[in-house]
Amino acid sequence: MTLIDGKKISQEIQASIAQEVQNMIAAGKKQPHLAAVLVGNDGGSETYVTAKIKACENVGFKSTFIRHPDYVTEEKLLQTVYDLNNNDDIDGFIVQLPLPRHINEHKVLEAIDPKKDVDGFHPINVGRMVLNLPCYVSATPYGIVQLLEKYNIETSGKHCVVIGRSHIVGSPMSILMAKNTSLGNCTVTLCHSKTKDLKSFTQNADIIICALGSPEFLKADMVKDGVVVIDVGTTRVASTETKSGYKLKGDVKFDEVAPKCSYITPVPGGVGPMTIASLIKNTLSAAKKGIYK
Amino acid sequence: MTLIDGKKISQEIQASIAQEVQNMIAAGKKQPHLAAVLVGNDGGSETYVTAKIKACENVGFKSTFIRHPDYVTEEKLLQTVYDLNNNDDIDGFIVQLPLPRHINEHKVLEAIDPKKDVDGFHPINVGRMVLNLPCYVSATPYGIVQLLEKYNIETSGKHCVVIGRSHIVGSPMSILMAKNTSLGNCTVTLCHSKTKDLKSFTQNADIIICALGSPEFLKADMVKDGVVVIDVGTTRVASTETKSGYKLKGDVKFDEVAPKCSYITPVPGGVGPMTIASLIKNTLSAAKKGIYK
Repeated sequence: MTLIDGKKISQEIQASIAQEVQNMIAAGKKQPHLAAVLVGNDGGSETYVTAKIKACENVGFKSTFIRHPDYVTEEKLLQTVYDLNNNDDIDGFIVQLPLPRHINEHKVLEAIDPKKDVDGFHPINVGRMVLNLPCYVSATPYGIVQLLEKYNIETSGKHCVVIGRSHIVGSPMSILMAKNTSLGNCTVTLCHSKTKDLKSFTQNADIIICALGSPEFLKADMVKDGVVVIDVGTTRVASTETKSGYKLKGDVKFDEVAPKCSYITPVPGGVGPMTIASLIKNTLSAAKKGIYK
Repeated sequence: MTLIDGKKISQEIQASIAQEVQNMIAAGKKQPHLAAVLVGNDGGSETYVTAKIKACENVGFKSTFIRHPDYVTEEKLLQTVYDLNNNDDIDGFIVQLPLPRHINEHKVLEAIDPKKDVDGFHPINVGRMVLNLPCYVSATPYGIVQLLEKYNIETSGKHCVVIGRSHIVGSPMSILMAKNTSLGNCTVTLCHSKTKDLKSFTQNADIIICALGSPEFLKADMVKDGVVVIDVGTTRVASTETKSGYKLKGDVKFDEVAPKCSYITPVPGGVGPMTIASLIKNTLSAAKKGIYK
């Protein structure tokens, strides 16, 4: 069993980007610049945005952090988006989700210039992903694809079962794994809350991508020997063992599933750290006009 | 076994739209208007476009047919697209595919105003479909969904196997059938040329959507009793039995598979006629600003 070390891969990617940014600046090019917009005071969202901004600074990007109170109007938030679209110094930006209920999330995401949509949530980027055209792939799916690539995990002709059909992970993963590309070509089964007899699918899977947010859901009797397991779940579970009072639990009952696996991602330290590396990679692409001219 | 009569359903839809158009015009509203652009002299493409235009006229739409020779420049074709985008009388338009090799097909499709993209091929419409937002769904997948609906075929919790991952049918069908909507909620397996042991998937399927373009590919021993089979294949096979010298063959060996089915679409007369009904429905939506304001 090989443990997939997302933390290490993420650090390697960031180190390589830091070097590239140094070279770009030495060559007189513009410093890549990511902006992040946060609405309200949700603790989780604030932690994520702060981590993203810190990672940007670590690789030598310029960063801008824009905060709005939770009562900001949709109009004002849209104006922020338009300003960022029109600001030539900003290469890419993200609007941290979720947004307060009085704001139409899709309207805000669709207002982002697809060329600067480094989160890959704009319908144009989603559609281009489906159509196999250059696009920003959103952070978690892109992170998973990079892990499979780094560990040379064979996907062609394999049966990949994706559990969970969220717009952010499950749905794009099912699309990416089935595509006619070197890191795709799986026969993909997309399972979700309405799936009957889930075990009959997972037991026949060569690769399982578990993204439902239900702690320790995937048990040993649900998988076959030699399976590759990618655990996307990160649920905070109360714990007396840690100072913070909680522990991060994945969707996989790691202790019993891991011995049956050829490869498995741990939680924490698996998929999680890759999301930031993906965002940084997308922002670098934006700065280099690698996707859109 | 129930034979799904796509021809009848298509005619019913078109008759109902014809009535609605009469009412719209009687109420002083603008006549819906579809334009179709054809490049070159491909016989198949010409037949399709002519059929679409004729169907438009039958339901009372205005139609415009624009022809370019096969040596038309990309620039000139793009200019046609821009003109149609800016022509307020045109509600929707299609550029018949395939285009000659010297023209970048994606560039042309992306130049179409998504609001007028009644073929649903623009990445924005594809992305909005994935994200469960209002959009134009392309004609064949939309036609299949309407057939399942008209025949009250239960999809929730069923295992749907889609064979073929084309951008036009297989890929969007796999997305639509898995969605959390009344006509979705299937556990979906997307199979394709790289799939190993296809039979192990099809034998466990409640619904099979066959879209690979390989005549009589799906045999009786590949399906279980009571399966729903949707046959999207339409391959011209030489025949001495018909005046035209060819026969249309589906992807399903109908004679032997049909007796095992609860529902099956014939070829011809199943999915085929529905594509025109879908295009007409999308154009009516465009005229009524039903998707985009």
